[in-house]
Amino acid sequence: MLVLSSPSGAGKTTLSRALLDSDNEITMSVSMTTRPPRPGELHGKDYYFVSTEDFGIMRNKEELLEHAKVFGNYYGTPRAPVEAALAEGRDVLFDIDWQGTQQLDDTMPNDLVKVFILPPSAQDLERRLNRRAQDSADVVASRMQKASDEISHYQEYDYIIINDDLEKSIEELRSILKAERLKRHRLTGLANFVKRLRDAL
Amino acid sequence: MLVLSSPSGAGKTTLSRALLDSDNEITMSVSMTTRPPRPGELHGKDYYFVSTEDFGIMRNKEELLEHAKVFGNYYGTPRAPVEAALAEGRDVLFDIDWQGTQQLDDTMPNDLVKVFILPPSAQDLERRLNRRAQDSADVVASRMQKASDEISHYQEYDYIIINDDLEKSIEELRSILKAERLKRHRLTGLANFVKRLRDAL
Repeated sequence: MLVLSSPSGAGKTTLSRALLDSDNEITMSVSMTTRPPRPGELHGKDYYFVSTEDFGIMRNKEELLEHAKVFGNYYGTPRAPVEAALAEGRDVLFDIDWQGTQQLDDTMPNDLVKVFILPPSAQDLERRLNRRAQDSADVVASRMQKASDEISHYQEYDYIIINDDLEKSIEELRSILKAERLKRHRLTGLANFVKRLRDAL
Repeated sequence: MLVLSSPSGAGKTTLSRALLDSDNEITMSVSMTTRPPRPGELHGKDYYFVSTEDFGIMRNKEELLEHAKVFGNYYGTPRAPVEAALAEGRDVLFDIDWQGTQQLDDTMPNDLVKVFILPPSAQDLERRLNRRAQDSADVVASRMQKASDEISHYQEYDYIIINDDLEKSIEELRSILKAERLKRHRLTGLANFVKRLRDAL
């Protein structure tokens, strides 16, 4: 379970997509939200878009691994698809904020790898936020505040990527995933492999 | 500090050289030994070849980070070059066995990344040991026993690489190093970077 968090505008979505495109063993966890879709966003791909009522039902039935309210909208991670992917031996990528990460760490603490993406500079972040034409100036201003809040939680993460070069950052993210898969405790069947090896020597 | 251990014949030396050739930030820790040089081995590059008396003096003055006796010969890691490299902010690669790793974990526990290389099969290991023409049949047999002993310690390591394809293994080793360098606690100056970033938002 790989968690990617970052302030909005630090390039996390681009990085997630690049990782998913280049790695067959990882599945994206699609979040559920009560906010309306932005132009181009697809139900089931970018988010599951649901009503506030349906969201509340899911939450009350403990069918969400984590959930939070941001700018008046609810966001959450449906439990079933994550558990299904893990049962198949697949890795799961989560694009969630610090609140979601803390909750996920609570519900599924065993095997969480937490990566925080930082922008190279405040100017860079501001520029990328302004480029999202569909957001109003007010929304951009409150996103800057939220970015600062999000960044304040960087110490809760295992790895830090400073996204000053997209290609380099993708390579770094791939390396983290590759290295984490080589961690001894994640290699299933290793004890038997070693036993057979030693028996044959 | 990156430790590579493996049974003799699992390809550790080739992997170390490939890593050193492709990475400017890492320095090899050259071990000291009382065994005679093999054909082609250079003093100061492959080992520091010293007398048993000189080895004893170094050890008694606590100028070795770890040391062990293997097949009647002494092996050890001189402390001074490692501390000098670390002081310059360089990473250091150690090609040592499980005994050395345990001692290093004792003397320098803070920042050790431990990687164990396994051969893909017993046959593969045997073939590679037999290929070293300079060793006698007796030495090969006792190396097989030593290989089995060494492998029995794999659970003391953080990462496991099964060396069934040299290029793939080199890539895995590079990923481990790259990922470990992105660990939050290793990124110096990060708190100040984040403070400046948040101040500017």
